[in-house]
Amino acid sequence: MPSYPHIDYPNFSFEVTHQLKSGARLGRLTTPHGIIETPNYIFCGTKASIKSLSPVQMREAKTDIILANAYHLMIQPGADLIHEMGGLHNFMQWDGPMLTDSGGFQVFSMGNPSCIDEIKGTNRKKGDSLLKITEEGAEFRSYLDGRKLMLNPEISMDIQRKLGADLIVQMDECTPYQVTKEYTAKSMEMSMRWGDRSLTAFEKAHDGKQGLYGVVQGGVYEDLRTQSAAYVASRPFFGTAIGGCLGGDDEEMYGILEWCRPYSHPNRPVHFLGIGRIKDVFKSVPYGIDTFDCVMPTRIARHGHALMKGVSSEKINLLNAKYKNDPEPLDPSLDIPASRDYSKAYLHHLFKAGELLAYQIVTQHNVAVINKLMREVRDAIKHDTLNQLEKEWIPD
Amino acid sequence: MPSYPHIDYPNFSFEVTHQLKSGARLGRLTTPHGIIETPNYIFCGTKASIKSLSPVQMREAKTDIILANAYHLMIQPGADLIHEMGGLHNFMQWDGPMLTDSGGFQVFSMGNPSCIDEIKGTNRKKGDSLLKITEEGAEFRSYLDGRKLMLNPEISMDIQRKLGADLIVQMDECTPYQVTKEYTAKSMEMSMRWGDRSLTAFEKAHDGKQGLYGVVQGGVYEDLRTQSAAYVASRPFFGTAIGGCLGGDDEEMYGILEWCRPYSHPNRPVHFLGIGRIKDVFKSVPYGIDTFDCVMPTRIARHGHALMKGVSSEKINLLNAKYKNDPEPLDPSLDIPASRDYSKAYLHHLFKAGELLAYQIVTQHNVAVINKLMREVRDAIKHDTLNQLEKEWIPD
Repeated sequence: MPSYPHIDYPNFSFEVTHQLKSGARLGRLTTPHGIIETPNYIFCGTKASIKSLSPVQMREAKTDIILANAYHLMIQPGADLIHEMGGLHNFMQWDGPMLTDSGGFQVFSMGNPSCIDEIKGTNRKKGDSLLKITEEGAEFRSYLDGRKLMLNPEISMDIQRKLGADLIVQMDECTPYQVTKEYTAKSMEMSMRWGDRSLTAFEKAHDGKQGLYGVVQGGVYEDLRTQSAAYVASRPFFGTAIGGCLGGDDEEMYGILEWCRPYSHPNRPVHFLGIGRIKDVFKSVPYGIDTFDCVMPTRIARHGHALMKGVSSEKINLLNAKYKNDPEPLDPSLDIPASRDYSKAYLHHLFKAGELLAYQIVTQHNVAVINKLMREVRDAIKHDTLNQLEKEWIPD
Repeated sequence: MPSYPHIDYPNFSFEVTHQLKSGARLGRLTTPHGIIETPNYIFCGTKASIKSLSPVQMREAKTDIILANAYHLMIQPGADLIHEMGGLHNFMQWDGPMLTDSGGFQVFSMGNPSCIDEIKGTNRKKGDSLLKITEEGAEFRSYLDGRKLMLNPEISMDIQRKLGADLIVQMDECTPYQVTKEYTAKSMEMSMRWGDRSLTAFEKAHDGKQGLYGVVQGGVYEDLRTQSAAYVASRPFFGTAIGGCLGGDDEEMYGILEWCRPYSHPNRPVHFLGIGRIKDVFKSVPYGIDTFDCVMPTRIARHGHALMKGVSSEKINLLNAKYKNDPEPLDPSLDIPASRDYSKAYLHHLFKAGELLAYQIVTQHNVAVINKLMREVRDAIKHDTLNQLEKEWIPD
């Protein structure tokens, strides 16, 4: 007998409003903090802040939804404090839909740094803070003060309930690339048991304000991926998240999406965890991906990279000497000062001079570009012109 | 025969609209980029950027006028480049009145670090880049690449003309505190000759778009200060700037203002160079000071200090543990999200977490507080209630 509760999500809904033969679809995701059209992009506000941008500036860039990371917030300032301050929405003054992850990804990334290139939002040496993974959960050390902490499905649900985001994610183990199929299978089975524990813990405190996503694991193995997708579909999760190791190259990653698709619940929103280059968006929406998240747009901004439509590398490097006296703005078609008013020469100067304003301007520009991308992708799904749009964004 | 040209400032004016017996006065300073009411505060955009704030955010905080530093900009990106990009206003997208300094202060601060505590906007070891001061000018090394550079009155005028700010400043030698009266006197006399050279160079390229300030030097010596003030008043400068070593404590500084007052030109705007604590504003306006500039409001913001009306230390330290769970905003009477919407608890968290958004929020708050201070100071001059206002801002 499976041990998981029945769960309703009275304040949530996901409606597929249009679907192409290719599999790409338009949707409408309703949360207590608003409705978003899908496909859409969830921007990373790791420590309850989009790096260098205010919520007002995120809205100016036409952002619909953001996320924060349970792992960072449990360490600082702590979930109880955020709960006392009225939850994440009130704490950071974002009034739209929001997602938190389980914290598991960051904990396991620290122990297994090889699957994903970088640990989101921390600068610690890799591999030195995960202490132990057992059936119970994961023991690790705080990157701040070294104290021992535990993360398990019940604790993650409790933390995410206190944070109060609309969309939350079950705790899973994120397996690295180089482990054996046997390890991946065992890990996936534990993630399933953790999924049931997450559902049980979630249901106990459920007040209708949060929707829980299950996570599809199974690494690079077709039979495991399909088994995991079928498990998530069989349980009363609100949404499906695709996570874990996605292979060594793009083709392998998109192949994994193809395996998961037929076994995933057709009427639930599908989130692609941590993936979100412009190319990934075009390649993934035909597999029914509804939402993306990635630190890329905000992180590369701080290194001087501005996203660009119509550039095969997706971006330009403002530190390049050729922009030194370039009087043109980043993209005058975007109706925000960041993209419209400042010359590339000025931005080149700001980066050279280490001026903080550079981060703000280019981050807001990159967010605006991705939101424009998502609007155009939705429009292209409506008119079945995705291939054409992809060529406009990423010419050969 | 004095050797200086006749100069008109057709697009500039300064009108004293109200004057108290104490000496405090209201004025109206007209520039090609707009009119500002005085007393007013000029915020420091050292490298053509207010650190962490956009021009739009400066306007939201009700800023009237900003400055940039010729010294930093001549090194990076260079005055010619900014000229090619349409001047500072266009380069940084600030459309209001603007001032640049001569660059002299920074050059001499590097050689003589003892007068003013810190060198604005550079982190280099002090005292290692000024090579030589002669009648001709100052030779120094670039803090960026070590190349030898020269700054003299003609070069400073040329740089400031290319930058294109409304208000510009003659080159002077800024003497340190511990030098002898004899050195101070000789230096002051050289600054006068540099003043005449500045006027001559200024006049040659004058197109009516800039107003030139002379600088009163003379250190802590009454006879020298009065002599220097009389020199500046005797020459066709548009404005008077009070600079140089202002003594070892507040009383000495305000004493210097008292000496300068009777010898300064009564119908010209008086700028107090580099000074601008809240206390300084209250103590200085009775000596007829019309404008202030200081990095204080923006610099302390980046260290977690938020300016506060009604706090004897003028500010609070948001890193203090008592703000950890303080749900109150900084100042809800200020109609900007930065002051009104975010809790001190959130700001405490952002600083602890090293989040860039903290700098933006508190910098904008501090700018808004200073602009509110200046509005209230102008109102108090109108109603002769300066003493009462000072007690409201800085209680004992």
